Amino acid sequence: MTGGYLDAASGLPWHPAAEAAVQAALADGWADPSRLTGAGRRSAVLLDAARAAVAAEFAVQPDEVVFAPSGSHALQLAVLGCLAARRRAGRTLVHSAVEHSAVFRAADWHAERGGTVQVVGVDGTGRVSAERFLAAATGSGVAAAVLQAANHEVGTRQPVTEVAAGLRTAGPAAVPLVVDAGHELVYGSAPSAPVVAADARLWGGPAGVGILVVRRGTRWQPPFPVDESEAGRALGVPNVPAVVGAAAALRATRADRAAHGRRLADYVDQLRRRVPELVPDTVVLGADEDRLPHMVTFSCLYVDGEALLTEFDRHGFEVSSGSSCTSDRLVPSHVLVAMGALTSGNVRISLHPGTDQADIDRFLAVLPEAVSRVRAAVPAGGPARTPCPVGQGTPVGQGTPAEEPPPGDTTVVDSRGRRCPLPVLDLARALPGVEVGAELTVLADDPAAANDIAAWCRMTGQQLVAADDLGRYRVRRLR
Amino acid sequence: MTGGYLDAASGLPWHPAAEAAVQAALADGWADPSRLTGAGRRSAVLLDAARAAVAAEFAVQPDEVVFAPSGSHALQLAVLGCLAARRRAGRTLVHSAVEHSAVFRAADWHAERGGTVQVVGVDGTGRVSAERFLAAATGSGVAAAVLQAANHEVGTRQPVTEVAAGLRTAGPAAVPLVVDAGHELVYGSAPSAPVVAADARLWGGPAGVGILVVRRGTRWQPPFPVDESEAGRALGVPNVPAVVGAAAALRATRADRAAHGRRLADYVDQLRRRVPELVPDTVVLGADEDRLPHMVTFSCLYVDGEALLTEFDRHGFEVSSGSSCTSDRLVPSHVLVAMGALTSGNVRISLHPGTDQADIDRFLAVLPEAVSRVRAAVPAGGPARTPCPVGQGTPVGQGTPAEEPPPGDTTVVDSRGRRCPLPVLDLARALPGVEVGAELTVLADDPAAANDIAAWCRMTGQQLVAADDLGRYRVRRLR
Repeated sequence: MTGGYLDAASGLPWHPAAEAAVQAALADGWADPSRLTGAGRRSAVLLDAARAAVAAEFAVQPDEVVFAPSGSHALQLAVLGCLAARRRAGRTLVHSAVEHSAVFRAADWHAERGGTVQVVGVDGTGRVSAERFLAAATGSGVAAAVLQAANHEVGTRQPVTEVAAGLRTAGPAAVPLVVDAGHELVYGSAPSAPVVAADARLWGGPAGVGILVVRRGTRWQPPFPVDESEAGRALGVPNVPAVVGAAAALRATRADRAAHGRRLADYVDQLRRRVPELVPDTVVLGADEDRLPHMVTFSCLYVDGEALLTEFDRHGFEVSSGSSCTSDRLVPSHVLVAMGALTSGNVRISLHPGTDQADIDRFLAVLPEAVSRVRAAVPAGGPARTPCPVGQGTPVGQGTPAEEPPPGDTTVVDSRGRRCPLPVLDLARALPGVEVGAELTVLADDPAAANDIAAWCRMTGQQLVAADDLGRYRVRRLR
Repeated sequence: MTGGYLDAASGLPWHPAAEAAVQAALADGWADPSRLTGAGRRSAVLLDAARAAVAAEFAVQPDEVVFAPSGSHALQLAVLGCLAARRRAGRTLVHSAVEHSAVFRAADWHAERGGTVQVVGVDGTGRVSAERFLAAATGSGVAAAVLQAANHEVGTRQPVTEVAAGLRTAGPAAVPLVVDAGHELVYGSAPSAPVVAADARLWGGPAGVGILVVRRGTRWQPPFPVDESEAGRALGVPNVPAVVGAAAALRATRADRAAHGRRLADYVDQLRRRVPELVPDTVVLGADEDRLPHMVTFSCLYVDGEALLTEFDRHGFEVSSGSSCTSDRLVPSHVLVAMGALTSGNVRISLHPGTDQADIDRFLAVLPEAVSRVRAAVPAGGPARTPCPVGQGTPVGQGTPAEEPPPGDTTVVDSRGRRCPLPVLDLARALPGVEVGAELTVLADDPAAANDIAAWCRMTGQQLVAADDLGRYRVRRLR
């Protein structure tokens, strides 16, 4: 990993402490720790030590810690295990609109089996309102509620402490709160919730190690078949050396967390301030305060995030774009959509303890030209930009018009067949051609345009008068 | 691992090839291979190479190979994935009575959700009849059938090829056969079935790597929530270095399999012949022919398997006892019960490629005294061995007598409160005291006695006249 690796939130190389611990655990950690033979017992000793170390970081008892085969497994076991144990209390799962995709997958699975899912929206910074979340989570028939410690795409912290306290007032019948610890463990405190899930990849542990904490007194049961592993709460012989490595990396990382956190927060402040100064038409996303110290996300208007990634890569920088947890970049990030932010041209920079000031300076030096280059390469619109009566073209989608446009000719921007961010770019280029107070219509058949045109109008102070599901967007120039 | 490690079937230390491969894959294999960044792509290259290597060993295409978080995960994904994809064809799962416990757990899960499970019994060697299995698997409403390549406790091979061929005749509507490859991969050929599951721990790969092969044209779908890992067939970022290590160990192991297999089969033949010669009242279990080359299982009458393990351990030998896949030795092995074999005093010896003739000689030298020592330490029976009329004692269980004993006084052996193998030992000691043709009655409240007394009578040529669920066993001396 070089100083150009600015994608820590997607995972880190093994921490040196992890590598050393795995190496040391090979001789005695290969056997099934649930077996009563000599080899099994030696393996169990190592596993117990790792469990105790992890428990100490979470301030829980060792028997409250379950090792799972990945962070996603831990999160889904957390959610579906609460739902399974509390199915007599209700069948509703409440979660925020900006959770990790593993939560959405678990929610889909639950819904396909007759469960109900209620999603709590976020504000423009990606933050849930504690009041709204509590109102949803204390509704009738709620079996479990899920809230991340901080958002993994824009860094905004969630009001987990407030929500946990609010739910706790209901006593033993309280809806259990499942917290996705995410990066909070690396730079902050371990969430104090009935159920917590974590992924060792985020602190330089090996992949294949997730951590599930189920505090005593919480109703939870395995949602899938298990065996005698992890006291009957998980399946399969664990990779004990990997678990030992994950525990060692967690301890080492958390020992340094305050110092690293302060330093990285300073870098992030620089980036949040300088990026919009250096690059026109760029918006920094996420909350200004109460955020992860190592992450900054911004959107450069009118360009494609993938193209930016490629350009940064040419300069030796690895960053992330769009959704941080889906590989298929054609699906717009559900986090950005929930925030009402532009989903295109998105860049997430996440620092690691090895990042230094020189890396930041080098990135800022490269940034303006990189964005300009990508913007210059954006293809111009097609020939169908001439005014023509709306409604005579081929419908670009299914459905009926929401509202008729004003009578008479109107400027029409035909962006059909062009993928985001091009419809927004076409709109931005065409709008100066109409008078202030007048309207134009964009035709766009990329479904992502619905979010992006609305987000662009909010960001630039223009008015989206109407949008219909035929892919027609009426925009009034206000400035 | 020393020459005293004779428990290879429970898992092996990492193969040197695995250790070297993991080490080499650390620098480039830590990232999420489903990400499109530079680090992700480097990780994907390693994962693809591992997938190609595994596919070659199974003689399938790489996209037919799915990496799962453990052997048990692979097996359960195999079984439940076939059931999920074929639920319109039926809801019945057919499996043999001697499968890995992970199959039983999956079957329980299926049954709890309204599915049907049909278990096909085995003969005294632990082998399924292909005819009987096919009859069950081709019954109406069967969605999937599961059969192991060879039994993991006694080594008996199953008629997998015959069953697979029999099912295939039904064409595209054929019930898919799921094969648990187990140790067959290490010493034999990879099973040629629509779905195959395997565990890298059995060939010296790291724990945390299971392999699921789903051949093209087989209807299978993920039974649990997934993400974009493994082309949407699994969950969680895989531990790529561990997968690379598992693939390297598989190749290395299979390259040497013929030579090692022949050598270990010779050792096993020696053990099968010599053990009953050296130790009285010992029975070798499993088929004489068509068996795994590296495994031998025997039962020493009248002793507890755990006590034998401890005694062998004192001599530096690590072996296994009872069920090889449950840690709780208090549960008798379902495999031995299905075979009608004694479940107590059981020892499984499984060799690894590093085992040599000296290890075998040393074990055989130690064996007789070890068993004698344990036998000498078995506690004698209680005082209630005097004849008394049956039926006057306190019932030892719930239920009603199956059949009244002959009128008049009878020798009664009171083994209540004594755990297996003591009731069998009490019976063996008391029987010479009655005349040939006469009967005695054993009272035993350990539920395992039902299996063990029947098995002992079969083994020793005595007759179990009647048994009832009050824990009364009438035995007639025939010789």
